[in-house]
Amino acid sequence: MEVLLKHKTIRKFKDQPVSSELLNQILTAGCRASTTGNMQVYSIIVSEDEDIKNQLIPLHFNQPVAKSAPILITFCADFHRFVRWCEMRNAEPGYDNFLSFLTAAIDVLLVAQNACIAAEDKGLGICYLGTTTYNAKEIIEVLDLPKLVFPVTTIAIGWPDENPPMVDRLPLEAVVHKEKYRSYTEGQINSYYAYKESLKESLQFIKENDKETLAQVFTDVRYKKGDNEYFSDKVLEVLKEQGFM
Amino acid sequence: MEVLLKHKTIRKFKDQPVSSELLNQILTAGCRASTTGNMQVYSIIVSEDEDIKNQLIPLHFNQPVAKSAPILITFCADFHRFVRWCEMRNAEPGYDNFLSFLTAAIDVLLVAQNACIAAEDKGLGICYLGTTTYNAKEIIEVLDLPKLVFPVTTIAIGWPDENPPMVDRLPLEAVVHKEKYRSYTEGQINSYYAYKESLKESLQFIKENDKETLAQVFTDVRYKKGDNEYFSDKVLEVLKEQGFM
Repeated sequence: MEVLLKHKTIRKFKDQPVSSELLNQILTAGCRASTTGNMQVYSIIVSEDEDIKNQLIPLHFNQPVAKSAPILITFCADFHRFVRWCEMRNAEPGYDNFLSFLTAAIDVLLVAQNACIAAEDKGLGICYLGTTTYNAKEIIEVLDLPKLVFPVTTIAIGWPDENPPMVDRLPLEAVVHKEKYRSYTEGQINSYYAYKESLKESLQFIKENDKETLAQVFTDVRYKKGDNEYFSDKVLEVLKEQGFM
Repeated sequence: MEVLLKHKTIRKFKDQPVSSELLNQILTAGCRASTTGNMQVYSIIVSEDEDIKNQLIPLHFNQPVAKSAPILITFCADFHRFVRWCEMRNAEPGYDNFLSFLTAAIDVLLVAQNACIAAEDKGLGICYLGTTTYNAKEIIEVLDLPKLVFPVTTIAIGWPDENPPMVDRLPLEAVVHKEKYRSYTEGQINSYYAYKESLKESLQFIKENDKETLAQVFTDVRYKKGDNEYFSDKVLEVLKEQGFM
């Protein structure tokens, strides 16, 4: 519980290796997560080699955290192995479809989060790289992912070389609904976002980007409509290529 | 770490309530999970009311675990609240697309897994209901989910009234790849699945279902091609209706 409450994303790591024994402990804890029908329809790609990492880093838009981490772990939805088992056992698989992708993506994200918590419990730091879905196509090429394997997320992991402050969260009542979804009044939105909007970093974000509101920093700079639409088309194309649609 | 390694899915709960204070602690820990750009693009629907639960249970195919649990928690990808904030702040949102769905789905699954770990740390038991994506359409109706909200998974949660044995997992080397994905030889598949195939429960599964192999129990009984294709079409239709495609 303490580990969960103390979580901070780490973006700067020491130049110090993570032993393979420790990594195995972390991934073993990862794989204890719930998995649909105990099928374990996922794979975990551990990249430590400089050459492979140097191919992956630009695909994560050269984020400094990706460069700093001694290990990048790519978590993949994977029906390839399961299907191969089925085919070897005179069983006709039917997992080349979108529902199976969703099932496998859910499975692997539970593993990823378990692994992150195990890592943090051991004193390591982690950062999720959301860029994985953006450049899934190129990551598939670098990591030689076969059909029915799709990279869902990546974590950068290593020994922390920074101790950033905790970041804010919306009040719990902003994200929890009792029994049914209730729509948000203007007053509620104002109240739920007030603290975030009042933070010094938020005001600095607005100023640096020459915007009027914090929301505009998201819509006009960080997560833009045009980019989202471009990468949506790209990711859907890759899901087709990988055999999930 | 211990909590992660001891995880067992619980399908039978005591007739004993979970206090709202404890539930809040668990969901607070859930919301400390990493979230894309600190946007928290998710919502959590807590259903305890008998009437609502009785509407949800058939949508989870009347699984006994759903009936047994005092609380069902539906974890939703949610850009609705964020978009409402943007609109109130003179910012033009562009999150009605598939990439944004993926982003939000990833976000909420990390929250769900954190919440499960927090719950288990407090002695509660959990079970993921994979049926959520199958019947997303009807769940959306019951829970009044607006556009840009999509139910990704549900957990049944309560005080355990059973203590099942740990379930098997594939050997770690079956799911972990070093540097790049390596294809599986026949020998590897045989070796990785040997333990699972040797289990008494597996042999019983095969016999009960009158099948030749364990894989056939998955392909012909549990996760059938026709069902997967039917529910794939359905879930893609719902993603469109909710504005994510």
